[in-house]
Amino acid sequence: MKQLQTVSGTKAAPPPRAAQTSPLERLSQALKGDLASVNAIILDRMQSDIPLIPQLAGHLIAAGGKRIRPVMTLASAALFGYDGGRQHKLAACVEFIHTATLLHDDVVDESDQRRGKASANALFGNEAAVLVGDFLFSRSFQLMVEDGSLDVLRILSNAAAVIAEGEVLQLSTANNIETTEEQYLDVISAKTAELFAAACEVGAVVAGRDPAECRAMREYGAYLGLAFQISDDVLDYAASEELLGKSLGDDFKEGKMTLPVIKALKNATPEEKAFWERCMGALEQKDGDLAQAVRLFERHNAIGRSLEQARGYAKKGIQLLKDLPQNALRKDLEDLIVFAVERQY
Amino acid sequence: MKQLQTVSGTKAAPPPRAAQTSPLERLSQALKGDLASVNAIILDRMQSDIPLIPQLAGHLIAAGGKRIRPVMTLASAALFGYDGGRQHKLAACVEFIHTATLLHDDVVDESDQRRGKASANALFGNEAAVLVGDFLFSRSFQLMVEDGSLDVLRILSNAAAVIAEGEVLQLSTANNIETTEEQYLDVISAKTAELFAAACEVGAVVAGRDPAECRAMREYGAYLGLAFQISDDVLDYAASEELLGKSLGDDFKEGKMTLPVIKALKNATPEEKAFWERCMGALEQKDGDLAQAVRLFERHNAIGRSLEQARGYAKKGIQLLKDLPQNALRKDLEDLIVFAVERQY
Repeated sequence: MKQLQTVSGTKAAPPPRAAQTSPLERLSQALKGDLASVNAIILDRMQSDIPLIPQLAGHLIAAGGKRIRPVMTLASAALFGYDGGRQHKLAACVEFIHTATLLHDDVVDESDQRRGKASANALFGNEAAVLVGDFLFSRSFQLMVEDGSLDVLRILSNAAAVIAEGEVLQLSTANNIETTEEQYLDVISAKTAELFAAACEVGAVVAGRDPAECRAMREYGAYLGLAFQISDDVLDYAASEELLGKSLGDDFKEGKMTLPVIKALKNATPEEKAFWERCMGALEQKDGDLAQAVRLFERHNAIGRSLEQARGYAKKGIQLLKDLPQNALRKDLEDLIVFAVERQY
Repeated sequence: MKQLQTVSGTKAAPPPRAAQTSPLERLSQALKGDLASVNAIILDRMQSDIPLIPQLAGHLIAAGGKRIRPVMTLASAALFGYDGGRQHKLAACVEFIHTATLLHDDVVDESDQRRGKASANALFGNEAAVLVGDFLFSRSFQLMVEDGSLDVLRILSNAAAVIAEGEVLQLSTANNIETTEEQYLDVISAKTAELFAAACEVGAVVAGRDPAECRAMREYGAYLGLAFQISDDVLDYAASEELLGKSLGDDFKEGKMTLPVIKALKNATPEEKAFWERCMGALEQKDGDLAQAVRLFERHNAIGRSLEQARGYAKKGIQLLKDLPQNALRKDLEDLIVFAVERQY
């Protein structure tokens, strides 16, 4: 459906690229050895004498995320030709921060599904999900301290604080149909783009690059995060359920104010506005409401315009790479940010 | 009641010391200027553009905890004559870690009261309590990074991981009447004593003391934490509600396996065991059960024996101070660990 939308509703939609290797898969393949080291560190450092900790953490980590954030740290380091090994621990650190956030997110959302599997809080209880999240978060700090660079510590501890602020901000926008695009961008900049930015920056920092290059990688990461999150929010309405591995409409059910909804609301008729207020504000939903939401998106080209905006971020991200080393990895990073927008899952 | 118990049930109970200044008050008075600096940092660094964050954090911080943990960092630094100022930020950091833990604890316990006031999760919702806890936790790491000492970062990041492990371990012992004293001590060593230990150690580290002195302060802190927590667990059954500022029996209601319960269970008759299994294991409680629990404590001298054990820790803590500078602060620290056991609130 996402594709249908992009074809019917926007200019310049690229051709579908089904059954092809994705840039993320290519990057993961190119960095296979590094990724194996990261996975070994993750497995080793999520251990604890308290059996519930590796059980619960393992459930989420085994659920097979795309590992896109740690891959960014690895790719950034490799782009600059660094292979000293520090990037492995720091990539694990980035994944631990992400996993901790997911655990706490699921508690907040009362989600019972995560990546098509029962979520950790549904299986182990909210208490355990909160506390194991805390453990992984602390563990990530221990890993950073072991690395020993105050620059890296500064980047990642700032990221953690910004993410938490973004999550709190998101709480205040949920179920509020007055939420503006600017507020939405503030939320996703903080809760998603910040960790992508930090993951990329850390790779350049361990490679010892100059401040301009570190900043370029950081900003590329931020645009990648924005593109990735907007696409994620679109996919919640417009993906193939089978490819996505989770059910559609979760954000709708929770009344999350994501970009397509905000765009559909901008020129909404009073009747449409009442629909959104009932569904997202009051959370009074009935059968057929999700389909009606999608019809309203079509009427206002809300999916198409959301993706168009994401494509603008992708373009800016690619622009930022232009003075960095020109090699196969850089090409993959350029493709990745396009893929982040155009993916069907 | 606690006092009644200590009088009736144990040897060597010290005389009551009501209406007197407590050692904690004396320490806070002696370190008044330092504490004002810490409070200013806490207030400043809990700010955020997201209004919910200072609102919620302020609610808890305004609830007026005893600030015992940051006082330990200040006292430890001052004991060694250090007044360079680094201890202020680090004491704030310790309090942020503690506050974050409290916020997550209340979510886990589903508490609706904290220090006699509505708990943050009851007022603001579980979601906000989890996320603001995460924010304070990240903030504490930013403060440590600003301090810039990897030794301090190591101590406090380890403490955070150990605390989280302790909280998870506590989950597995709750409602399990087979919990042993050893498991109980593992839980309180991790969830309480570790932060007291780290708070004390950090004070010695910023004062630039040698490893033996830093270790002595650390171990003193650990014993203080054990004494403090056992007393806390006793007070939940045996305090004056008015002095304690919260209602009695919270641990009982939740089926928390604390030291008095474990001691009462040790030589319990089958009938008594069935009582504990019903109340703590199955959480099937009725009117009069709390009073019956207290009667069983009296029969087995469970409160007296718990406090006796805490007094043993206090003695060890005092012993650890013997090679450290002999000044008024050291005397206060000696008195404090005794007070941690004997306090009525």
